[in-house]
Amino acid sequence: MEKFEQLSDLVMPIRDDLLSGAAEIALRAITIFQTVMNNDGLSVNELKERIVQTARALVEAQPAMAPLFHLSNMVLQATEGATTIDEIQKQCQAALDKFERTLCDSVAAIADLVFDLIPPGELIFAYSFSSTVVSCLLNARAKGRYFRVACTEARPAMEGRKLAARLAAGGIEVIHTFDNALGLILPNCSTAFMGCDCVGIPGVVNKVGSWAMAVACRELGIPLYALSGTEKFVGDDRLFEFEKHERPDNEVWDNVPKGVRVLNHQFELVPFGLLSGLVTDHGILREQDIDKYVSKLEVHEALKLEPVTF
Amino acid sequence: MEKFEQLSDLVMPIRDDLLSGAAEIALRAITIFQTVMNNDGLSVNELKERIVQTARALVEAQPAMAPLFHLSNMVLQATEGATTIDEIQKQCQAALDKFERTLCDSVAAIADLVFDLIPPGELIFAYSFSSTVVSCLLNARAKGRYFRVACTEARPAMEGRKLAARLAAGGIEVIHTFDNALGLILPNCSTAFMGCDCVGIPGVVNKVGSWAMAVACRELGIPLYALSGTEKFVGDDRLFEFEKHERPDNEVWDNVPKGVRVLNHQFELVPFGLLSGLVTDHGILREQDIDKYVSKLEVHEALKLEPVTF
Repeated sequence: MEKFEQLSDLVMPIRDDLLSGAAEIALRAITIFQTVMNNDGLSVNELKERIVQTARALVEAQPAMAPLFHLSNMVLQATEGATTIDEIQKQCQAALDKFERTLCDSVAAIADLVFDLIPPGELIFAYSFSSTVVSCLLNARAKGRYFRVACTEARPAMEGRKLAARLAAGGIEVIHTFDNALGLILPNCSTAFMGCDCVGIPGVVNKVGSWAMAVACRELGIPLYALSGTEKFVGDDRLFEFEKHERPDNEVWDNVPKGVRVLNHQFELVPFGLLSGLVTDHGILREQDIDKYVSKLEVHEALKLEPVTF
Repeated sequence: MEKFEQLSDLVMPIRDDLLSGAAEIALRAITIFQTVMNNDGLSVNELKERIVQTARALVEAQPAMAPLFHLSNMVLQATEGATTIDEIQKQCQAALDKFERTLCDSVAAIADLVFDLIPPGELIFAYSFSSTVVSCLLNARAKGRYFRVACTEARPAMEGRKLAARLAAGGIEVIHTFDNALGLILPNCSTAFMGCDCVGIPGVVNKVGSWAMAVACRELGIPLYALSGTEKFVGDDRLFEFEKHERPDNEVWDNVPKGVRVLNHQFELVPFGLLSGLVTDHGILREQDIDKYVSKLEVHEALKLEPVTF
């Protein structure tokens, strides 16, 4: 099978995006599948093979971001039985539309729940950048709830600045500081929210810094909610894929001196024990509720992980 | 009394130094007193007034750094009874020499205790920049103890990079990451050390980020020791002077968007309850030991804080 040359160019912006949340990136992946689908002159098998390659490349590009996995999985399942080019295109588009609808419905359901979790007139804390968190906070503001938001930079990519700017543009007053100033700002906050990239039985995976924030919230008795559509739920095998994701050291420190090794990982696990709840499109879930959603997931053959062999 | 014009130029490098620890800065303040003392053509009263102005300016420049306060206090007390220029100069120099000796003896005593707290072959954590911590770790390495050090940047001034570079230059292998990656690196560490800027009955004051690090250490069961000569001990009134020390917001974020307020403080309090011990030149102290040292402190009239009035 010929190699699909365009693919790495198509996927590169997704791999290199350190500022966007998982839901936001999944919406951009929809247009990549549409581009792939509109290539003329391919046989049915060639087009199917391109879909498989695209799905794998997207999942590989951001291994911590479950929505990319589910989108790819849905497209593969939807197109598997198709026997003509036209059928593949129609079924792919139907899967993409369904996924986009699910994402939007899911955010709307979460936003309704979050509204009731924001104490009027208080300062609340939000970490990293999550389009779900932004949508929920802007929705609450639009519905007339008044509150302020504190957030930190989220080094090294500084997506916390994106969060601050987006909320301020939406009319929310923001207090911003550096990441290690948690001890200065958190004691003034009454509730904290974080997005997440994927959810499994052991906990939620989110941007590095979430664990320290969660530990600090518990120390101060501040409730912490992770916001996540159930399209972010994955099995335990896939949950730990985020550990693969090491980034270049010069993103942290240019010209590292001899004898110093730089560690630059993007994601980490926050155990359920540190969360007050997981706010989803199926209500506010606790640890024991997750298994029900995870055990039902069906993974297409092309996306199954190879078992580790010793 | 004429205003001492040179003074702000002399003190500015100390006010603007965001990278050095308190002991290191106090050593540099010694040369400022020497400069002030060598001005010719002043009367006894004029020279004494300059000493008072210098002492106040140094304490004001870095209100969290107790060694600057003690150095200034010692110089004021030593020169108070002097009746000639020559006597002022001699007694000032004697106070400066004594202070420098105390600092050095104190670090040597602390280094002996720290040696026994470093588990051989392990990774240890160190936060921010402290010349005491650097001296103790380099001393242990020189005495043949093998260990590696993990540290983080300490945004916004990045004095963690200075720590990393200094330790690496001294032959210690360093692992460096960004501040919010505590959750990735701390679980691999067996002990943690921090310097401090001042110590009082409620706890130790150190660079912002120390509190979150201390909370994370406790969560993971990692012993955390603060290193401090007893020349950093102060009364409760002075302990909270660090709260005055707000820095410009552009050190955190240039071009802050409208609607975003930036918080940039340098220091914070770590309560004793979060420390495993305070390693001093008088042994490893616990919370109940501090009062004995603090209650004996005599403060010169010129450095007494005005009581807050309502």
